[in-house]
Amino acid sequence: MKLGRVIRETPDGAEIRLVAIDIDADLATDLRAAEGRRLRRAGATTEAAKAISGVYFPSSLTAALGAGQEFLRRVEQAIDEPDEKAVLPLGGLKWAPAIDPPAMLDFAAFEQHLVNAHARGKKELGDVFYERPVYYKMDPNTVIGHDDVVPWASESSYMDYELELGLVVGTEGSDLEPATAQEHLLGVTVLNDFTARDVQAREMPSGFGPAKGKDFATALGPWVTTLDELDINDLTMVARVNGEEWSRGSTSTLTWSIGELLAYASRSGKLVPGEVIGTGTVGLGCGLELYKSLQPGDVVELEIEGIGLLRNTIGKQTGSFWQPSPKQRTASPTLPPRPTRSRT
Amino acid sequence: MKLGRVIRETPDGAEIRLVAIDIDADLATDLRAAEGRRLRRAGATTEAAKAISGVYFPSSLTAALGAGQEFLRRVEQAIDEPDEKAVLPLGGLKWAPAIDPPAMLDFAAFEQHLVNAHARGKKELGDVFYERPVYYKMDPNTVIGHDDVVPWASESSYMDYELELGLVVGTEGSDLEPATAQEHLLGVTVLNDFTARDVQAREMPSGFGPAKGKDFATALGPWVTTLDELDINDLTMVARVNGEEWSRGSTSTLTWSIGELLAYASRSGKLVPGEVIGTGTVGLGCGLELYKSLQPGDVVELEIEGIGLLRNTIGKQTGSFWQPSPKQRTASPTLPPRPTRSRT
Repeated sequence: MKLGRVIRETPDGAEIRLVAIDIDADLATDLRAAEGRRLRRAGATTEAAKAISGVYFPSSLTAALGAGQEFLRRVEQAIDEPDEKAVLPLGGLKWAPAIDPPAMLDFAAFEQHLVNAHARGKKELGDVFYERPVYYKMDPNTVIGHDDVVPWASESSYMDYELELGLVVGTEGSDLEPATAQEHLLGVTVLNDFTARDVQAREMPSGFGPAKGKDFATALGPWVTTLDELDINDLTMVARVNGEEWSRGSTSTLTWSIGELLAYASRSGKLVPGEVIGTGTVGLGCGLELYKSLQPGDVVELEIEGIGLLRNTIGKQTGSFWQPSPKQRTASPTLPPRPTRSRT
Repeated sequence: MKLGRVIRETPDGAEIRLVAIDIDADLATDLRAAEGRRLRRAGATTEAAKAISGVYFPSSLTAALGAGQEFLRRVEQAIDEPDEKAVLPLGGLKWAPAIDPPAMLDFAAFEQHLVNAHARGKKELGDVFYERPVYYKMDPNTVIGHDDVVPWASESSYMDYELELGLVVGTEGSDLEPATAQEHLLGVTVLNDFTARDVQAREMPSGFGPAKGKDFATALGPWVTTLDELDINDLTMVARVNGEEWSRGSTSTLTWSIGELLAYASRSGKLVPGEVIGTGTVGLGCGLELYKSLQPGDVVELEIEGIGLLRNTIGKQTGSFWQPSPKQRTASPTLPPRPTRSRT
């Protein structure tokens, strides 16, 4: 099953609707509309049909996943009885981000990408990447969808893409084991972790991880494919810029398995419905590894086998923005004398 | 005004209710109950009063802030006409996290803390901390509230607290200027950025920032104080462990102003209602800077002038957890030949 979100016009303005996509038929079913019509056929009043379908199929896929197993049952019911008034041709749809994640992690689970990126900086990859699956957190406030323009990051003159698989959590889980963690996934999507390389290079010496080098745009889409449709451990991943292939890889080259990533992500914490977990960039899956960069107007297409194609256009450089003025060093260490025992 | 969230029992189980706190009267007003009763007095049916009060005062403070300026107007209305059936004595209340943030950043805006923490590692603080306000992202999935037990982080034998001011965003804003950014704040809360120092030390060499060293618990509470009640640029901050004062500082020692932090946070992105932005730890505001650590059963109290006191008890060490087995190094760089121009 493929589940996405599209933007439809209503008398109250634009509204995001959950859709189920049928690629072969070139159609999407507006789930709220379909469920409302199904309920009316089963004797519900217009008022009740609207209220119930709105609760099961709100604009937020994360909120919809909150219904647990009932959510997918309702989706199946809504598309099992097709109603032509709830069906839309795929062409011409305006896409919202496939999901509105309440939290987003990004792992660095492809050794080849890390080795290459470090080699560009004349560095060897540190032991920590082999000792544990390393991650940082992405910015849920700047998620964009299929066909959206990527805002050019302030302060940057080196924009890049990153070709990643996005894991979408379906059900809550804590302290999971690698062998069974995958049961908590709803499905997968295509993730483009857009990066301002020069900003990233300036901020990474802090050791605090990517910040404004990443927190301007993360693309998720075009939709989520549920796990029953594919073998997520062997998916071909391709990136094209202006129609030319730049990157090609496979999820089969993951250094840390998807089960291991989910287990680590959930350790001493929890996965929540709608959360998105990136695998990190596949080897040679970004311009940095290819001595290439993106320019305004470039069209970036990421395609993952069995999911679909996520396309974005790079926006224009922005004008003015607030740039911090450097501060003076004023403080010296004020540590107390080191005690003979660690706890006093 | 002080706004918080408490857990109340209902026939359908425990439910989080938004409350307005009157410290002097030692009372909290259940806003949903108060608004429902006010509406009924104004002629609303029981059904409509329940529906309307539930929309304005849901369990989520973030969702409530979505109503914009109407939210605070409704709060004022609900507490202006006190109804004894909606009022609860402060003592005995069970607190939920002050807010349920959709995103959380943590800055490193107190130079003294950074200089001290680096001195513990025999390092000088890097230039990047003086060039821009550095931040990392906190984990919204592991937020805890006042009086909650702090889960002991897996793999750790060195637990620590961090004394911070938490800024709570009220209204959306992008590319803000330092002089006016503060207008987007609802108020402030006390933030304890609990840290597993040994786990943090193992993962920081990645450069990807704190992960499992932080992503097990962040305490927010006891409530949010709106900005009209205080001067956030001069608040005394104190930490006590088992009743003994360990840390004392002030927001007046911030290296980057709160306006600068908000402006940078919003650059090429946006602040969203309910988002929490930490200032980072005040100088000498954690055990690391004092050669001290926390033990199971320790009671940590953080108090900030004009806000209140956030108290948490350190939990017991956990038993089994999944620990990754190291991977072998297998990849060598596969970079293409360096081109003569950067774009080919």
